Amino acid sequence: MVASQIESLSLTQVAQQTRRAASQLAVLSTEDRNQALNAIADALTQATPEILEANQKDLDAAEQDGISPALYARLKLGESKLQSAITGVKDVAKLADPVGTVQINRELDQGLILQRVTCPLGVLGIIFEARPEALIQITSLAIKSGNGVILKGGKEAINSCQALVKVIHQALSNTKVNPDAVQLLTTREEIKQLLALDRYVDLIIPRGSNSFVRYVQDNTRIPVLGHADGICHLYIDKSANQTQAVEITVDAKTHYPAACNAIETLLVHQDIAATALPSIAKALIAEGVELRGDTATREIIEAQPATEEDWNTEYSDLILAIKIVDSVENAIAHINTYGSKHTDAIVTQDNTVAKMFQNQVDAAGVYHNCSTRFADGFRYGFGAEVGISTQQMPPRGPVGLEGLVTYKYKVTGDGHIAATYTGSNPKAFTHRNLNQ
Amino acid sequence: MVASQIESLSLTQVAQQTRRAASQLAVLSTEDRNQALNAIADALTQATPEILEANQKDLDAAEQDGISPALYARLKLGESKLQSAITGVKDVAKLADPVGTVQINRELDQGLILQRVTCPLGVLGIIFEARPEALIQITSLAIKSGNGVILKGGKEAINSCQALVKVIHQALSNTKVNPDAVQLLTTREEIKQLLALDRYVDLIIPRGSNSFVRYVQDNTRIPVLGHADGICHLYIDKSANQTQAVEITVDAKTHYPAACNAIETLLVHQDIAATALPSIAKALIAEGVELRGDTATREIIEAQPATEEDWNTEYSDLILAIKIVDSVENAIAHINTYGSKHTDAIVTQDNTVAKMFQNQVDAAGVYHNCSTRFADGFRYGFGAEVGISTQQMPPRGPVGLEGLVTYKYKVTGDGHIAATYTGSNPKAFTHRNLNQ
Repeated sequence: MVASQIESLSLTQVAQQTRRAASQLAVLSTEDRNQALNAIADALTQATPEILEANQKDLDAAEQDGISPALYARLKLGESKLQSAITGVKDVAKLADPVGTVQINRELDQGLILQRVTCPLGVLGIIFEARPEALIQITSLAIKSGNGVILKGGKEAINSCQALVKVIHQALSNTKVNPDAVQLLTTREEIKQLLALDRYVDLIIPRGSNSFVRYVQDNTRIPVLGHADGICHLYIDKSANQTQAVEITVDAKTHYPAACNAIETLLVHQDIAATALPSIAKALIAEGVELRGDTATREIIEAQPATEEDWNTEYSDLILAIKIVDSVENAIAHINTYGSKHTDAIVTQDNTVAKMFQNQVDAAGVYHNCSTRFADGFRYGFGAEVGISTQQMPPRGPVGLEGLVTYKYKVTGDGHIAATYTGSNPKAFTHRNLNQ
Repeated sequence: MVASQIESLSLTQVAQQTRRAASQLAVLSTEDRNQALNAIADALTQATPEILEANQKDLDAAEQDGISPALYARLKLGESKLQSAITGVKDVAKLADPVGTVQINRELDQGLILQRVTCPLGVLGIIFEARPEALIQITSLAIKSGNGVILKGGKEAINSCQALVKVIHQALSNTKVNPDAVQLLTTREEIKQLLALDRYVDLIIPRGSNSFVRYVQDNTRIPVLGHADGICHLYIDKSANQTQAVEITVDAKTHYPAACNAIETLLVHQDIAATALPSIAKALIAEGVELRGDTATREIIEAQPATEEDWNTEYSDLILAIKIVDSVENAIAHINTYGSKHTDAIVTQDNTVAKMFQNQVDAAGVYHNCSTRFADGFRYGFGAEVGISTQQMPPRGPVGLEGLVTYKYKVTGDGHIAATYTGSNPKAFTHRNLNQ
């Protein structure tokens, strides 16, 4: 369905339509889904002039509204960004199929076989920022994983999103994927309605500001994949290699301060603080980082005073809070109190301390002697990332395509009934694992 | 802490205490946790007289209150039930450790190793019916999986539960497991407070009536493992073996009608209805099943009229709703509309139809030529079952110990920073899987 048609349907009807199309998509072969992805890539290449023209409309409107240069840069698609997004679609086509993996293959009794097989979730609801190429990436991940998708992009990108979805629908109409599997919402009011559709939508992935993600988490019964905060810590143990301590701190703080895997708080063991902190501070200041420290820190280096609020803050900026601790236990306690279970790291040459830290810090990622910035689906080798989850239950941490599938148990027998295996003379199960 | 002490602490304090004890428990070795389980088993054996005495108090009070014979039978522990629960604790000790499994072991670059390792969730909140032996089973699964547990049993079992927890605490005090890891709540008011403690409790497992489970799902931000409804279907295809059709229907409906994996609705293909339905109905009636049918069904067999409400009802009783459909597609559509995503089955000799049914029915279990009653963690060979989940995301279906653990990503380097792998001359990741 083209975007203009959606307006005449209620969101419930749109979701039902998506669900029907998703049911068909779910049972297509790997080849059919990959073919659809390649058709989208080709259509986007051919339609490049129209897409860039629609993007220019968004840019003109944004300029009139006076949006910030950073948002403008995100909104601007341009030929090279579009080209690399198209390459991304082809790359997703080449990834291993997350659907149809046999996770358990077990004989329960002669002729009674249990298989646990991965299958699509159903319909995804994805709300993303005003970055047109995100729509391309999300759509390709949804189709690859056999899911329908209801998209809502940032309002500044409305013309770009509509142009992209039009091209995607045209491309899909020549493939086995029903174009209804990809839907675009265009108004902010629809987000609230979308969050209420727990009968038709199986997973919500919100991208954007922390407050927005929290709003989504608090306003839906649909499972949410995402994280509100990324309060990551680096702990410099008394047995740290000081060169590594400086390099890892600088990388984790300054390499991309707006990323969720950048650190916000540095914890330093008191026995190494006097020697390590000055060189760390010097390197950070050279990169333009503002330092805030507790009393003990400020006795060693110059820094603004840090308050309780600092330990709870994701700056997403060139600011770092520093605290001196008297033990690895207290470093762990601080992290488990103030952290957001995203990614925390230790620098130490003492493997016993490192092991303790990695076992006891409760976070999706716990690192030793490397930067927190490695917390990323591509860097982990997942090929594509659908988001980073800080919830306790799996999927946790950077989530690849596996976060977009679930599984079902298929049992096949030949008239087997449960009564055979109970009562006074029960038959025993064999529970024999078969080759997968 | 003994149960009497709890009353003087707020529930938040109890939860904090459980969390601290759980942190210690989480890092104990497999042997330490198994040793604690065996200590519990021994202590329960020794304390059998006191436990049965406490149970007798509950039984006396229940008799005075005039509870139903079925509830009384559940509440009654007795020596043999207690003995088999104790054997269960020893069996759980023998199960494979769900903690510490390396799921991913990958070199990201030389000297930079990513591991995904299973670890405990933290603290479980488990609300269960007035069945004292359930407390023993739940506690053993929690300790095995390295989790703290806050227990709330049905109020009729209060003396039994207090006696059991007292014995468990005494047993644990001689092991490496801090007794605070196991806590007992005793009042109904505490359930609501427990559901609000999303900061300290990581998973809620409600057992009991559908309405109670739904209440829990609607009143907490903590993930819930469980299912409100078990509306399971059996579809008799036109190519069914009619003997199997009769036997599987009788087993799935009558073997244990109160179980969630019993069927509530029978769908029959119109081409086989006239020959198959009479013998199915005869066998069901012989087992005392009340039949309710749509118009087409009632033209073939005698049955009460089925209404829309019947398709939505979990009878949990010897009642079966019957509907005649004109195709497997319509059987699938009916199930995907009215089912509760628990377990649905098809009887057919046509493997193409079976495959279509198993792929397109959206449920945790989709079976071919066998009874829905196999949907059970023990029958699947999981050794222990913590519950059956009908949610879309994993864990789904019968959940073994794996539902009580999560995982974390551990990355270990030697001073590796992300900047090395980006920019104008980026180093490539190796992404080489290592032996696990």
